[in-house]
Amino acid sequence: MTYCVATHLNEGLVFLSDSRTNAGMDQVSTFRKMTVFERTGDRMIVLMSAGNLAISQAVRSRMNELGEGESIWSAQSMDQAASIVGDAVRAVYDRDHKALSEFGIDFNCSFILGGQIRGEPCRLFQIYAAGNFIESQSECPYFQIGESKYGKPILDRVVRRGTPLDEAVKCVLISMDSTLKSNISVGMPLDLLVYKTDDLAVSRFVSINDDDAYFAHIRSRWGALLREAFHELPEPDWSQMDPERSRPIFDRHIRSMDQ
Amino acid sequence: MTYCVATHLNEGLVFLSDSRTNAGMDQVSTFRKMTVFERTGDRMIVLMSAGNLAISQAVRSRMNELGEGESIWSAQSMDQAASIVGDAVRAVYDRDHKALSEFGIDFNCSFILGGQIRGEPCRLFQIYAAGNFIESQSECPYFQIGESKYGKPILDRVVRRGTPLDEAVKCVLISMDSTLKSNISVGMPLDLLVYKTDDLAVSRFVSINDDDAYFAHIRSRWGALLREAFHELPEPDWSQMDPERSRPIFDRHIRSMDQ
Repeated sequence: MTYCVATHLNEGLVFLSDSRTNAGMDQVSTFRKMTVFERTGDRMIVLMSAGNLAISQAVRSRMNELGEGESIWSAQSMDQAASIVGDAVRAVYDRDHKALSEFGIDFNCSFILGGQIRGEPCRLFQIYAAGNFIESQSECPYFQIGESKYGKPILDRVVRRGTPLDEAVKCVLISMDSTLKSNISVGMPLDLLVYKTDDLAVSRFVSINDDDAYFAHIRSRWGALLREAFHELPEPDWSQMDPERSRPIFDRHIRSMDQ
Repeated sequence: MTYCVATHLNEGLVFLSDSRTNAGMDQVSTFRKMTVFERTGDRMIVLMSAGNLAISQAVRSRMNELGEGESIWSAQSMDQAASIVGDAVRAVYDRDHKALSEFGIDFNCSFILGGQIRGEPCRLFQIYAAGNFIESQSECPYFQIGESKYGKPILDRVVRRGTPLDEAVKCVLISMDSTLKSNISVGMPLDLLVYKTDDLAVSRFVSINDDDAYFAHIRSRWGALLREAFHELPEPDWSQMDPERSRPIFDRHIRSMDQ
């Protein structure tokens, strides 16, 4: 399994991916899921992938084989870049889906593509296995692919378009921490990339391992703060709850079962 | 979709279920998912269900039709009660699975069964669609069925066997809140049941609606506390991170794509 998340903010973009790939619990490997297309002063584009590793690697190979006019390096807009990824997905589907389905394997892949091409604002896309895609809007300033549910609540509560880049970094790391805690098929190291609008080059990139002091601090401190917050909440006040209201339904169950 | 959660503590058991059922976004209904079998002084058993509503209702009907020796009301142990539910699931499977599969519908159902029969300690089980089941142990003091991922991180961080009942109530309500926030197919009202070991009767039961003051307070206060905790964490200290370590992989990507 995989977990990748990207946020689209007024200040720029933040990308985070894990690197665990597994085919059953006894075959676990480390594969990077983030690919960077950077030509300083012209474009900075990040592609992250989830799903079947053979499929997502085939999509990236296919993108390299496309003609000059169809390359991420020559795309005139992020929209066109997303189309190029989508076309590569469809080409791989055409070649592989029949053989895969004979082995009962779904054509399962998804991508996040984000960045900036000179002359355009920052943009962020999610691309589906069918090759179609959606773009982030201000009401939905993030995309997730892979094992997304454990890490979604904190994003919903914190990330807005106006969130500063460093706060978004903190938030996606907490979101990843919740995912790592609940699903062992998501694993270290993590790739973290920060892009500041109009830099037209990678602003910051770090690979985070188990020994990373900041991430280790976030992980232990967040758990402690959550427990503190939990204990600050009042315990249930049973006197305020109205047991009468629910009695009829409760009794009906009992009567219907008790013969 | 559904979300049900139960915790097994030294002090007793806590059960919480939502009541939203949907077959597509345009057909949403309220159905209670908690059934209580209570004979004061003898047994207090709670059954919660998730999955296909027709299947879980058929299972409950089937449980009513079983002979005298195979009823929840006559089970000698919780283990036997879990077997009875499992047998009912298998009977419904035998009758329905062929017809369902012709419509492309999975035989999808799962159950949580917990409570106490006189002479035994409290016990908690999760029953699968195949009719087999597992029992909670001290390392895993809770079970979830339905839309379980959003609400799992807080349970992992807080619930232990030694957690007091009222704290567990608070925790399952927060777990439900995270689920309600992230999945619109889980909905109010909620059924909350607390069982204190050796009461051999329902200790507390309330049906929680949108106007419940305690739950409303928990919901708004938890969101605020989470944001406060978030802001207490330090922002990333970029000077401490080692960008050198990750450069080679990063560059390799760029070189491999940039032709």
